[in-house]
Amino acid sequence: MFIQIIDILGTIAFAISGVLVALDKRMDAFGVLIIAFVTAVGGGTLRDVMIGIEPVSWMRDMTYVYVIIGSAFFAVLLRQKINYLRTSLFLFDTIGLGLYTVVGIETGLVAGLKPIICIALGTMTACFGGVIRDILCNEIPVIFRRKEIYATACILGGLSYFLLLKVMGDSNFVFILSGLIVIITRLLAVRFNLGLPSLYKKEE
Amino acid sequence: MFIQIIDILGTIAFAISGVLVALDKRMDAFGVLIIAFVTAVGGGTLRDVMIGIEPVSWMRDMTYVYVIIGSAFFAVLLRQKINYLRTSLFLFDTIGLGLYTVVGIETGLVAGLKPIICIALGTMTACFGGVIRDILCNEIPVIFRRKEIYATACILGGLSYFLLLKVMGDSNFVFILSGLIVIITRLLAVRFNLGLPSLYKKEE
Amino acid sequence: MFIQIIDILGTIAFAISGVLVALDKRMDAFGVLIIAFVTAVGGGTLRDVMIGIEPVSWMRDMTYVYVIIGSAFFAVLLRQKINYLRTSLFLFDTIGLGLYTVVGIETGLVAGLKPIICIALGTMTACFGGVIRDILCNEIPVIFRRKEIYATACILGGLSYFLLLKVMGDSNFVFILSGLIVIITRLLAVRFNLGLPSLYKKEE
Repeated sequence: MFIQIIDILGTIAFAISGVLVALDKRMDAFGVLIIAFVTAVGGGTLRDVMIGIEPVSWMRDMTYVYVIIGSAFFAVLLRQKINYLRTSLFLFDTIGLGLYTVVGIETGLVAGLKPIICIALGTMTACFGGVIRDILCNEIPVIFRRKEIYATACILGGLSYFLLLKVMGDSNFVFILSGLIVIITRLLAVRFNLGLPSLYKKEE
Repeated sequence: MFIQIIDILGTIAFAISGVLVALDKRMDAFGVLIIAFVTAVGGGTLRDVMIGIEPVSWMRDMTYVYVIIGSAFFAVLLRQKINYLRTSLFLFDTIGLGLYTVVGIETGLVAGLKPIICIALGTMTACFGGVIRDILCNEIPVIFRRKEIYATACILGGLSYFLLLKVMGDSNFVFILSGLIVIITRLLAVRFNLGLPSLYKKEE
Repeated sequence: MFIQIIDILGTIAFAISGVLVALDKRMDAFGVLIIAFVTAVGGGTLRDVMIGIEPVSWMRDMTYVYVIIGSAFFAVLLRQKINYLRTSLFLFDTIGLGLYTVVGIETGLVAGLKPIICIALGTMTACFGGVIRDILCNEIPVIFRRKEIYATACILGGLSYFLLLKVMGDSNFVFILSGLIVIITRLLAVRFNLGLPSLYKKEE
């Protein structure tokens, strides 16, 4: 129950982040809805298709569809005021990031895949909705450009998951703790402005 | 038989629309062929992959492959004169839109999916070939930008499908009528220059 | 054994080509790794998803993952000197092209698909990693733009495969010979600067 509420909050945050990008690109109402949808379910869809879980998740559980349509509608209506909500949005997005990572990892485990693949699936679930959003908006995906800690937090959380699994055995704590590690890493990185080391001599 | 002829006309129209965009981008012969292919079968492929119908449709029925290669060849040969055909092309494209929508909906129904998901699949089948075409051509997909009634016609046709299904029961009329609703909506919208309401205060 | 070494060399070459493009775009470390990955396994992943071989190949055989991570690390470290290696890279890439084409064809045959579809799958396996790389980097895919012989070599090799299969029956020679035809076509085309005929009156 608790998990499901967090899941829905994450979906809302991702959907709204999609709406904001689409509005920046001056898309029409249909475009805004699709970008909201793709941002929220794109990562999980890619994961499901690659593993072979079909029909993909959002086709089987209608909650996502309703939540996304609702969020998009709400975000468009309040678009003038949504800037005041940016801090809450950032929090939702970070919570979604942590949760989606662990959901992706566990989906991989259920399919019998190796840990390193599961970590990749977790990161994909959390980050690739945003990647597809950026491709549809004709941008180089933001997570490939900024040296920000974003996908890195997912990878770190994924490593922790398997470490904790070894130490504690299969338990809900593993889920919660490794999700928290993603969230805390991300929060600390933004708070203290930490980033990946630059690969280039002189940044423009 | 009648349906199949319409299906092929739709495929031809979508393939040719791909060729025209690719030529505008000054692609080479291989690029033109791929863009024609992707525009014609991209939406259905995405649908099949997400539902889990694999190998995807165009790998099982060779008609599509031959029709697309033929159309691309023809369109490239007659590229100087194809502008005279733009009205017929628009008609084919609109007919294809209606037909692909209903085909997508029925594919979803056969897979046991809920009506709202089926409508999404119908819209995807009809519109996402063009979306993938635009991504490969490095453009923001045209259906997300113009306020034109295009995907909206598919959604309307999809809603009608399930309404008619309730009223009339399972019959070929449902197929034909809801396809016609897509087509007529699209024709009327273009004729009277109707569009989605703008989300922005002042359009540039 | 021999085949597997070539396969790994191809994977390395494709991964490094991804790193070079990502560095040109000034991506961060995570972006570079993802682009390397996608360039090396993107074509095969698309093929597997469309046929329905899931989980896709690189999730089942960890060799790819290790080889790609290693190559990306190596390429980033030596990025100042990698320009001296461009000729060897071109050779690896060409060998990979030949091998991936035949692997794609045979995957299609095992799935019971028709020859023309198998040729499309072979070409997709060899070329679409680069296509996805270019889309993520926000470019029109290079193989659609240059009039260079690249995908055309794969198609030629694919046609030879089925010709040889008819003449020689099922044997390893068919595999090796048609792979060689891809490689030699590509080498000759580059050496003598051959290209597809232009579709346009006056090239800019």
